[in-house]
Amino acid sequence: MTDASTAPAVTGAPWAVAAIDRFLNSRYKGMPVARWASLPGPGAIALTAGIPDPETLPREELLEAVGRVLRSEDARWALEYGDNYGYMGLRELVASRVDVQPGLGYTAANVHLTGGAAQALQVIFDTFIDPGDTVVVEAPAWGGIIRWFRGFQARMEPVSLDEHGIVIEELEELLDRLDAEGRRPKLIYTIPTFQNPMGITATLERRKRLIEVAARHRVLILEDDPYGELRFAGERVPSLLTLSGGDGVIRTGSFSKVIATGLRVGWIIGPKEYIDATARMRFDNGTSPFMSYVIAAYIEAGHHEPHVAKMCAVYRSKCDAMLSALEERCSRYATWTRPDGGFFIWLKLPEGTDQNTLLAAANAEGVQFVPGTSFYPNGDGAQYIRLAYSYEPEPAIAEGIRRLARAIERAAP
Amino acid sequence: MTDASTAPAVTGAPWAVAAIDRFLNSRYKGMPVARWASLPGPGAIALTAGIPDPETLPREELLEAVGRVLRSEDARWALEYGDNYGYMGLRELVASRVDVQPGLGYTAANVHLTGGAAQALQVIFDTFIDPGDTVVVEAPAWGGIIRWFRGFQARMEPVSLDEHGIVIEELEELLDRLDAEGRRPKLIYTIPTFQNPMGITATLERRKRLIEVAARHRVLILEDDPYGELRFAGERVPSLLTLSGGDGVIRTGSFSKVIATGLRVGWIIGPKEYIDATARMRFDNGTSPFMSYVIAAYIEAGHHEPHVAKMCAVYRSKCDAMLSALEERCSRYATWTRPDGGFFIWLKLPEGTDQNTLLAAANAEGVQFVPGTSFYPNGDGAQYIRLAYSYEPEPAIAEGIRRLARAIERAAP
Repeated sequence: MTDASTAPAVTGAPWAVAAIDRFLNSRYKGMPVARWASLPGPGAIALTAGIPDPETLPREELLEAVGRVLRSEDARWALEYGDNYGYMGLRELVASRVDVQPGLGYTAANVHLTGGAAQALQVIFDTFIDPGDTVVVEAPAWGGIIRWFRGFQARMEPVSLDEHGIVIEELEELLDRLDAEGRRPKLIYTIPTFQNPMGITATLERRKRLIEVAARHRVLILEDDPYGELRFAGERVPSLLTLSGGDGVIRTGSFSKVIATGLRVGWIIGPKEYIDATARMRFDNGTSPFMSYVIAAYIEAGHHEPHVAKMCAVYRSKCDAMLSALEERCSRYATWTRPDGGFFIWLKLPEGTDQNTLLAAANAEGVQFVPGTSFYPNGDGAQYIRLAYSYEPEPAIAEGIRRLARAIERAAP
Repeated sequence: MTDASTAPAVTGAPWAVAAIDRFLNSRYKGMPVARWASLPGPGAIALTAGIPDPETLPREELLEAVGRVLRSEDARWALEYGDNYGYMGLRELVASRVDVQPGLGYTAANVHLTGGAAQALQVIFDTFIDPGDTVVVEAPAWGGIIRWFRGFQARMEPVSLDEHGIVIEELEELLDRLDAEGRRPKLIYTIPTFQNPMGITATLERRKRLIEVAARHRVLILEDDPYGELRFAGERVPSLLTLSGGDGVIRTGSFSKVIATGLRVGWIIGPKEYIDATARMRFDNGTSPFMSYVIAAYIEAGHHEPHVAKMCAVYRSKCDAMLSALEERCSRYATWTRPDGGFFIWLKLPEGTDQNTLLAAANAEGVQFVPGTSFYPNGDGAQYIRLAYSYEPEPAIAEGIRRLARAIERAAP
């Protein structure tokens, strides 16, 4: 089994490890080191990560789906290479059920399966972003997108969010300025529903105006929607893709938040021409057929809707637990958003809070959150923190907020 | 569930589909359209695809492994985000068992899990290749790598293979010339074991010389090894990574050919500094923890070695069936390689064979293969074809060669 005995090293002095800088490319050199949502230390409470509740993961339902796939006539296709677009059966389900856009007449041809919404974004950038391209990014924005735009050497222009969505006047001003500078952006990145990190949902009015402004300036909208199915309050608002009539918007989604983040299956949905372009830029022989067949079997067996309904109830209750604890402990000096779904609350710290003192105090108390600066490309956000209620059990959420309150009080001026 | 009723389109005339050319990036514009290994038409025999034998896929063993993962205490970790390096348990197994390099003292720190060896290559290029970089590619080479180097805007310089491996004199001449031109390549891409498409295995002598020459010229070797475990004849030859002493070589591997191509789990193994660099360039939140836990459970349950042994016997027999049929039908006018493992035979057509006539005749006969030109970056290879014996059952292999022989005879001058 081993070949070491017959394999003396043949080179002279090692050279390549010492010379690695010569081999690294310019994209690497612009890519910030990844920051993982750190796991809590012993006894610490993690209000950090946008990770589904671990107690309610659909283990038995997934096992049942795997059994049906592997014992079916289709097993060999689930275990063979697919194509760059992904398993047709799951693409059909995404087009017709999971991501309903009936007004658009979308079919499997409008869907490309990816390794989570994260790879969906990578493939979109692989297809559309050249180094030096300008992109507009909502601010605050999901930290991953800021890091990845850096890795793709895009020039980010932030546009503010308020509790109703992107601030349209600011966007118009920005696009006018960029047009005047000859720097028309390729796209506007936004999570309009249960936004990460703010937890807010863009209103119908803001969505319509966003589409109008983007179309007038000939800028694509990249609508990222990992949380949209997890609504536990308020009325559903049409997606930007639906509102656009199917032109000018590319939309990404995922099974990560509604089934499990460890599966790594998501999608791009949009105009067929854009889907075809992204499918050409896959360098990995496509998304796992096995995982895709399993998810299709899981949906076809009727597990999806009941599980989503169950998760919505779980997150409603967890969100309420966090809001009640905040009300009780922090209302004198802090304000925060009130989400209708998703995983996150965005908290504004007392004026003049020192973030380093706050982090040290939170660490001493045993509670973790994500500092607001992680969500801006330009160092802004020091007066905010993101709190996730998705992951920890309810008693830990309440205790976490009590610890956080003590930390804030210690760091306040 | 639907939002169409409340969602009139708000834009004016559609614009973005018609304007797609303005959004596509320069990488896209250099990326050839993917050619799938086409499925056989009704009754046609596919000697095309490098796909494992579909009759012997380890379905029950995989199902058993999934059950153990989902019913274990670890299930929640299998269903949650991992990190960019991938599941530690499987990285350890790759370092210590699947890809044995005991002389190197490698550990999990030297392994980065990827979506198949295909994504391993993408991540390596994402980390090390700038547009315009020169790369050396063996010729003939796996068609995917030619397409992907184009997509990464690399300048490919081919170097010939013969039945013993890369022709070292030609490589030295090429590297000297490129050095003189100030175009030192970043890397040399090669599959030294059961090469795709030739089926040959580089000798120990050629491997040592390749490492010496590459080190002298300060060029990395990218050793792609998807087939290495599938040896059914001859003696194992040490990997380039082992021979290099762990410096100057990055190696990629995969569970695709030894378990199933539909899983999409592979790896990069090499010096830790290079592994760390590639892990930073993941834009997809890492390889599926679920699939990685399942494969680790499958290996830990003892399914891997017996299945590989079984596959080796299957491919030995299939290869023999193809060789016998070739001997019987084609020995008067064609020559071919005799692999010690893997999936492929490389056949040299009679001098002056017209490829278009051959393809039409093969189509009429109902047999499929891959034309040799698919394996060269520069249009060479018209006198060769690649035959895969991995996929079709033995009687079909024999019948396929009979059909191929008739097609060759019709296309011969």
